[in-house]
Amino acid sequence: MKKIIGINSSPRLKGQASKLLDISLKAASLQGVKTEKIDLYLYRIEPCIGCVSRDQRLCRFPCVIKDEANKIMDKILESDGMIISTPVYWYSPPGHLKNLIDRMTALENMIEIEGRSLLEGKVVGVIAVGNDSGAYSAASQIASILVTMGAAVPPWGIAFYARPEPADSNKSILEDAANVGRVVAKMVNMLQKIEWYDPDILNSIF
Amino acid sequence: MKKIIGINSSPRLKGQASKLLDISLKAASLQGVKTEKIDLYLYRIEPCIGCVSRDQRLCRFPCVIKDEANKIMDKILESDGMIISTPVYWYSPPGHLKNLIDRMTALENMIEIEGRSLLEGKVVGVIAVGNDSGAYSAASQIASILVTMGAAVPPWGIAFYARPEPADSNKSILEDAANVGRVVAKMVNMLQKIEWYDPDILNSIF
Amino acid sequence: MKKIIGINSSPRLKGQASKLLDISLKAASLQGVKTEKIDLYLYRIEPCIGCVSRDQRLCRFPCVIKDEANKIMDKILESDGMIISTPVYWYSPPGHLKNLIDRMTALENMIEIEGRSLLEGKVVGVIAVGNDSGAYSAASQIASILVTMGAAVPPWGIAFYARPEPADSNKSILEDAANVGRVVAKMVNMLQKIEWYDPDILNSIF
Amino acid sequence: MKKIIGINSSPRLKGQASKLLDISLKAASLQGVKTEKIDLYLYRIEPCIGCVSRDQRLCRFPCVIKDEANKIMDKILESDGMIISTPVYWYSPPGHLKNLIDRMTALENMIEIEGRSLLEGKVVGVIAVGNDSGAYSAASQIASILVTMGAAVPPWGIAFYARPEPADSNKSILEDAANVGRVVAKMVNMLQKIEWYDPDILNSIF
Repeated sequence: MKKIIGINSSPRLKGQASKLLDISLKAASLQGVKTEKIDLYLYRIEPCIGCVSRDQRLCRFPCVIKDEANKIMDKILESDGMIISTPVYWYSPPGHLKNLIDRMTALENMIEIEGRSLLEGKVVGVIAVGNDSGAYSAASQIASILVTMGAAVPPWGIAFYARPEPADSNKSILEDAANVGRVVAKMVNMLQKIEWYDPDILNSIF
Repeated sequence: MKKIIGINSSPRLKGQASKLLDISLKAASLQGVKTEKIDLYLYRIEPCIGCVSRDQRLCRFPCVIKDEANKIMDKILESDGMIISTPVYWYSPPGHLKNLIDRMTALENMIEIEGRSLLEGKVVGVIAVGNDSGAYSAASQIASILVTMGAAVPPWGIAFYARPEPADSNKSILEDAANVGRVVAKMVNMLQKIEWYDPDILNSIF
Repeated sequence: MKKIIGINSSPRLKGQASKLLDISLKAASLQGVKTEKIDLYLYRIEPCIGCVSRDQRLCRFPCVIKDEANKIMDKILESDGMIISTPVYWYSPPGHLKNLIDRMTALENMIEIEGRSLLEGKVVGVIAVGNDSGAYSAASQIASILVTMGAAVPPWGIAFYARPEPADSNKSILEDAANVGRVVAKMVNMLQKIEWYDPDILNSIF
Repeated sequence: MKKIIGINSSPRLKGQASKLLDISLKAASLQGVKTEKIDLYLYRIEPCIGCVSRDQRLCRFPCVIKDEANKIMDKILESDGMIISTPVYWYSPPGHLKNLIDRMTALENMIEIEGRSLLEGKVVGVIAVGNDSGAYSAASQIASILVTMGAAVPPWGIAFYARPEPADSNKSILEDAANVGRVVAKMVNMLQKIEWYDPDILNSIF
């Protein structure tokens, strides 16, 4: 059975990002996948110290920093898809989530060590919820980064909500968040496990 | 046979965006799909006049503006995937490409008319090439917009290059651009035609 | 007397972007500056053809394309500040406005011809108004581009509004838009005319 | 004498972001201002816990979290301008810097407590340096956020560099970084201390 993890990056464990994630994971499970929820603020995550800038081969999984980021990355590795649900802090993800993303360089940079990003082919969905502007901006930032780490984004895989009214009183964002779970699971079930990036591709073209 | 169209949004018909697109389409065709290239600057595309803000049901395909945008949208509709290769004008797509994207609201807004975006399930890849900074910014902007119109982005579906040296002297961007074609075609071949967004999803959850 | 021009980049000449701009220009005039309003959709603006990529010295003001962009650029040159009020099309400025910005390379690129951007020291404010998400994203994109062309942005010089209710029923965005006019005018009155960028600066440092 | 602080947000205390910042602060000091440099990675900064979402009046300076963020905010408060020099982690500021920015909500949100953001009227410059794409994206994100907190950005106040070669071997980025210091200091010297945002502005307009 395929597996999808949900990451709630809000300090509020029962806040709006968390609730929308629950709905999203519920919708995913209806497509026949296992799900697991992670509350990011329960994990200690130190800032990335950018070993990769010193020597590209220094950065590898597991990361040398001995906090709890590797635990989360273990869970990401076991899963086929990932849904990130985030509050919007200044039109972008909170620093705590950004720290996790920075640290995930250890997964992506395995390209330099083993020739393959450990995130390649994972399917990613993003939900961003704020009470002012910037929700699109935060969601698209996360999704774009993950594509350049090797992940895929399904149709309607980005949902965002930026209004003063609580998200769970708005039918439209509830539908969008649930559909993020649906489409991530649908795509996880459709995609075969292949080596997506072909490092020798130019030989077959020229 | 599945089909992928490539859109060169550079005024230079044989410039770098165009060459990278050629390589990308070549790589796509090696995966067993038909390809077609469109030079956007050969088409007259007027600015969107935002009918949708007046009345959400006014905006539908074909667009009421009688220029050549509908011709391109016809080609998009016939295809299963799309690769957009663009120069970088001020860290973002040129206004001419943005005009096309704005006009593609006529495809996306069929949600309001027929319950379904005409772009749903199409696979999109983006290549951005500049001689200064901003290539990531341009590429991610295009990809994110298209996801929120209903398209999917495959692993490594975004490539960007921002250096003063010509792109075709840089092996890494040639590989990245070729792989954009490969992964768009791979994903086009893997994805089934389904209705991705379920408007009644909440009924199955609550 | 200093002068500020306002650019309404909405096709709706009496729509929300236009109304907020009127209020903003009114607030500016209360600071003792002249104002003028331009409706961008009344001007024909062709796409930039990127001469600068062929030869950096080819792009200069007035632009070689014989449409009405030079007229607007004439007005920008006569002014000390500029307020751009825009609707949000897919989280970013409409292609028509982006075409103007692309064409304004002819003003910025005078660095290569005469050693000085013709936009240097102008003060810029931005108002973005949409009925969905993306208003911050559109506003910040415009402001950031203009800073890298040589313009300054005053405190609170960016205002954005992204809600389904009409902007003119929302006191907060009316205040923000008015303050954009106020701060642009305040800063125009405070800034001296100097050469901001010193091309020989390294000589005084090392 | 006016004062400008420089924040190096790289874990490398003598890396490229740090060196460019030194040059920038040197150029600032030549304009007759005091300068002070802060190495952000020497400070412990916990993630923001978003009190403001629970009750808008809970978030105020000094922040309730008892780490070293308040020390940095003290230094920001004493200064008239700020130059942030940052490495680029995934096209955006490192999580550690984002955590500081999130925590600076305590300064901005004094609007709700005392009617005035404590960052209002401060002048901000940004330098972003990476060895791949995304430097513009990181720099503009930081600058835009700070404008919406009440800061101003001078002409040429954003500099970015994204190439594999070391920044200090590139004359153009050295000039740009030095000019960031120059223009921030120039603007600090020109701007008067005023209340920029007028909360009663509509009374004078309607």
